[in-house]
Amino acid sequence: MNEKIRELLIATGNEGKVREFAEMMAGRDVRLLSLSDMPPSPEIEESGATFVENAILKARGQALAHGMWTLADDSGLEVFGLGGRPGVLSARYGGMGLSDSDRTKLLLDEMKELSELERGARFVCALAIASPDGRTLLVEEGECRGTIAPSPLGMGGFGYDPIFVPNGFTKTFAELGTEQKEAIGHRGKASRKILSNLDRMGLL
Amino acid sequence: MNEKIRELLIATGNEGKVREFAEMMAGRDVRLLSLSDMPPSPEIEESGATFVENAILKARGQALAHGMWTLADDSGLEVFGLGGRPGVLSARYGGMGLSDSDRTKLLLDEMKELSELERGARFVCALAIASPDGRTLLVEEGECRGTIAPSPLGMGGFGYDPIFVPNGFTKTFAELGTEQKEAIGHRGKASRKILSNLDRMGLL
Repeated sequence: MNEKIRELLIATGNEGKVREFAEMMAGRDVRLLSLSDMPPSPEIEESGATFVENAILKARGQALAHGMWTLADDSGLEVFGLGGRPGVLSARYGGMGLSDSDRTKLLLDEMKELSELERGARFVCALAIASPDGRTLLVEEGECRGTIAPSPLGMGGFGYDPIFVPNGFTKTFAELGTEQKEAIGHRGKASRKILSNLDRMGLL
Repeated sequence: MNEKIRELLIATGNEGKVREFAEMMAGRDVRLLSLSDMPPSPEIEESGATFVENAILKARGQALAHGMWTLADDSGLEVFGLGGRPGVLSARYGGMGLSDSDRTKLLLDEMKELSELERGARFVCALAIASPDGRTLLVEEGECRGTIAPSPLGMGGFGYDPIFVPNGFTKTFAELGTEQKEAIGHRGKASRKILSNLDRMGLL
């Protein structure tokens, strides 16, 4: 028998992501904490090659720093006509000084010569859960397929959301609104998988 | 309307993989070629950060070199207790001079201190199809979840197959045999996804 998780640190600086998890875990007997509830956290270098490696690095690093069960994520956008870029570099694409909107423009500029078929893309989210002693227990990945719009549309979401049109829709993630994005999005898919694993393992 | 693909280069040096694809595409009006049917191919550096980036690099490079529709794959093993390693380095883990069996031993040595829960792992396969002018048309990924066995078992398969026990089974990939491995394995899953996409797009 595994001991149940009573407190879980959501190791992200993004309050929107913390809210998403809180909604999904409503009604469960677990207290969610975010990094802003904790003493200053160490900077974890995202030196992994893949989304999975980076999610594990972050989950382990924060679990060990705070001695708590910790969930961390790493996510990004892969544009197939750009060879899978920006990929793991999504949040740092073009350098750390850029805004989301600068990065989006940079990506659209690089795609000027691409054909319609090359605008296929996917958002990927890897989630990892580490135990208080820094062991990795669970890793899940979710993806959402779509195409890159010719120009940004919509005010919701963050990052590349204004240029990503999920398959089966005509609006961007930034136009669709949080609820619909969570239902079909990469983070929602990965979250549901990891939650059902925690249930199956008797940890929640 | 897209023009149908009549010839497809399977850009792998591994004849076992070519055979797997040939079986899956039996009965379709497309001629499959392998790199051994072609004039000497360029060495494509696998410099991508992720499986998807490497599969696209290989598909584009060979498509342009031979002016043909090309399918390429990149795959590897992620052990969660090792932070996702060997990951994209799977085939080169420990250096180029090692045999599959050396690499397997190296991995098991590194896992000596890990708990049962940390032995969770997944095989990942990314497939990419590029058109004769080097444009990337399709990318799919498949995964197979399992655990790492304490010691190698079985003679089938290749790479890390003798130490990978897929979830729901008690035997390693190397013991299960090709047919079962294709049915539940990472490459089979990615292949079926990409085939159904080719059908949907009217390319086959």
